[in-house]
Amino acid sequence: MRILIKNCSIITMIEPDDVYSVGQIEIEGDRIAYAGTVRDTDVKFDKVIDGSGMVALPGLINSHTHSSMSLMRGYGDDTALMKWLKERIWPVEEGLTGEDVYWGAMLSIAEMLRSGTTAFADMYFFMEEVARAVSETGIRADLSIGMVSVSGDWKERIQNCKSFFSEWNGEAEGRINVSLGPHAPYTCVPDFLALVSDLAGELGAKIHIHLAETLDEVRQIKENYGKTPIEYARDAGLFEHRVLGAHCVHLTDDDMRIMKEYGVNAVHNPQSNMKLASGIAPVQKMLDLGINVALGTDSSCSNNNLDMISEMKSAALLQKVGLMDAEALPAVKAIKMATVNGAKALGIDDSVGMLKAGMKADLVLVDMKKPHLYPQHDLISNTVYAAGGADVAYTLVDGKVLLDDGELTGIDEERLYFEVDKSLKRLFNR
Amino acid sequence: MRILIKNCSIITMIEPDDVYSVGQIEIEGDRIAYAGTVRDTDVKFDKVIDGSGMVALPGLINSHTHSSMSLMRGYGDDTALMKWLKERIWPVEEGLTGEDVYWGAMLSIAEMLRSGTTAFADMYFFMEEVARAVSETGIRADLSIGMVSVSGDWKERIQNCKSFFSEWNGEAEGRINVSLGPHAPYTCVPDFLALVSDLAGELGAKIHIHLAETLDEVRQIKENYGKTPIEYARDAGLFEHRVLGAHCVHLTDDDMRIMKEYGVNAVHNPQSNMKLASGIAPVQKMLDLGINVALGTDSSCSNNNLDMISEMKSAALLQKVGLMDAEALPAVKAIKMATVNGAKALGIDDSVGMLKAGMKADLVLVDMKKPHLYPQHDLISNTVYAAGGADVAYTLVDGKVLLDDGELTGIDEERLYFEVDKSLKRLFNR
Repeated sequence: MRILIKNCSIITMIEPDDVYSVGQIEIEGDRIAYAGTVRDTDVKFDKVIDGSGMVALPGLINSHTHSSMSLMRGYGDDTALMKWLKERIWPVEEGLTGEDVYWGAMLSIAEMLRSGTTAFADMYFFMEEVARAVSETGIRADLSIGMVSVSGDWKERIQNCKSFFSEWNGEAEGRINVSLGPHAPYTCVPDFLALVSDLAGELGAKIHIHLAETLDEVRQIKENYGKTPIEYARDAGLFEHRVLGAHCVHLTDDDMRIMKEYGVNAVHNPQSNMKLASGIAPVQKMLDLGINVALGTDSSCSNNNLDMISEMKSAALLQKVGLMDAEALPAVKAIKMATVNGAKALGIDDSVGMLKAGMKADLVLVDMKKPHLYPQHDLISNTVYAAGGADVAYTLVDGKVLLDDGELTGIDEERLYFEVDKSLKRLFNR
Repeated sequence: MRILIKNCSIITMIEPDDVYSVGQIEIEGDRIAYAGTVRDTDVKFDKVIDGSGMVALPGLINSHTHSSMSLMRGYGDDTALMKWLKERIWPVEEGLTGEDVYWGAMLSIAEMLRSGTTAFADMYFFMEEVARAVSETGIRADLSIGMVSVSGDWKERIQNCKSFFSEWNGEAEGRINVSLGPHAPYTCVPDFLALVSDLAGELGAKIHIHLAETLDEVRQIKENYGKTPIEYARDAGLFEHRVLGAHCVHLTDDDMRIMKEYGVNAVHNPQSNMKLASGIAPVQKMLDLGINVALGTDSSCSNNNLDMISEMKSAALLQKVGLMDAEALPAVKAIKMATVNGAKALGIDDSVGMLKAGMKADLVLVDMKKPHLYPQHDLISNTVYAAGGADVAYTLVDGKVLLDDGELTGIDEERLYFEVDKSLKRLFNR
């Protein structure tokens, strides 16, 4: 399959401000064959997309979410974290089946493709169901089974991860990677983390974990172990492997030095951190220190959508007001967090995150022919500060058009709502 | 003209949580005749809108913006405030003509109607051009000529306001109100404000002014007058009239007591306050004290859109993280700021801000049949936390359908872009 996208603007993300005001993109199979200025070519294309008035950018990478929690979107908002978890989320999660997890993930994948996300890092349970949804829909994903050590059989848990890894890592034409998902320092004791670390070494797997999300967590780990959550994770051996550290809100200067030393990837989740009143992560400082900071939405329960474009805006705005500095985290760095840095965090930066020849064709087209995106003094500014996920018209993954002029090509939305309704009826007795 | 909206959900905003999951709205002329549960009626309607899967809410009120600045959207972002004003904004504004202001306002009105805003409070110059755009498009507005005292002829300025007031106040079938717009404490000396105050008394006009936006302003007024900006405005006599105080970020407890005593209306602009690194306004505290707090976007230069739905989300999220309290400013209060409180601030709460019989038919329908708005455990939460301006399908003002199933009925967008391009070419030499 050969695709030509003609007359589009291009934000390549190869270098900051590397923008073509009018260009074209040629795709051959799953790869970008050319991305640059308009040129003549003898190639016969199977599909031509008119990108006039649109901006192409690398597909957005949501580096931390729990996709199946879409089923609980808006269920018990505006309540304190522990009350919300205990009275609302956990009771529902107790009743979840694999079928529910599958349709919850499908609902989120439909939303992500519609809003320009081409890859996501997910942590939850019944992950083989999420893998099935990823495989069927064509999106790219990094999947981890969420694990806690508080109860149950550790060995069985580790064995499950091993099976899930061997079954799904590298599957779906290479679109699925499997990571290990110890939930957080406050839910996993050191001995359990040591087992996870051993398994990561054995499999060569990444570790996806929540780190230093709340002041409560910091206090608790300090009281129990005399350490910060970052020191705790390091001492358990986790940092010997590639780590995706979600949140990283409350960090000491020493914590950031450790993260830099071990190459820990931080994933910033600004809207979730605001909505749950977790705090403001030191994103600008981490970036200044050379720590790789990616971007995520967290689940649609604490957000309440998976719109990575509005998440970029929130990231930039929150740093500015937090540091009282209008020049902090400029728009181009926010895009970088959602593309290049996300790819690096997921260990797939050799193939996605930039628009250039040879890379996988994971890309989106944002339609700028709208009053709120006019004029276009600065395409990067318009994309981050004025656009939203609903402005995405095309989403391609692996060279396949999954959102085509605003229509999902591989997901039947009426069927999707029908199946989600069945889950909701059972889970919420209505 | 009689319009029936059938099978829609309704967020009335009469009382918090006053929501109909399936209802209907009947409109006769410019008024709501009925809003409630589904009922049979013998009335012959001229137009029937199928509201299945949609949520009706009162039209959103953008209580502080500078609509014509859309021409400079994204022009010089991520720079410190004074540098940005001096090097970017002011040089362009020097060259603005009435024609530019007209088309800049038209562009913003197109954006506002598309994203569910039915009324806005505007401050700028060449305001007769904005009035013309409001009159032609059918939106509702509160218009004020921005005034500074630093140079020029004060008397002429006051006379201009008087003329503008007599020409436009109450015009466009009552959709236009005229206010007086002294820019800010740091740009208007006390003697000038006294003249403005006298004029407000003579005309019975409101005053629209920026108040306590930045720490710099607070420092400057303290140094020069030994007062806070709120005390300064009170002592100049402004608070004897109805006041729309934009921003109100840096307030002392005494300031808030004064605002409560005089009934000063605050307008919160969270995205602008974040982007310009102004600070976090004490919104929850003001509301707790009984101060009326409305919501605005500020101009699309410091935002960079006029999307009141995403502004509601930002307001709620910023209070939560600012106060480290997940229960601060819940979704329903954010909607109230954008509807009921906005109407009160603009002095039009006898006719808009709620969906009930007898009120003007200013309302919007948000289309919830989208993956990011599914499921609907809580319609208010979905509207504030998961939706965006692009989800608005219908916008009605004064009983007229100005956005009809996603299409603007009264604005030719191709013509609009053509005329905006002419202004841009002249202003930016390209």
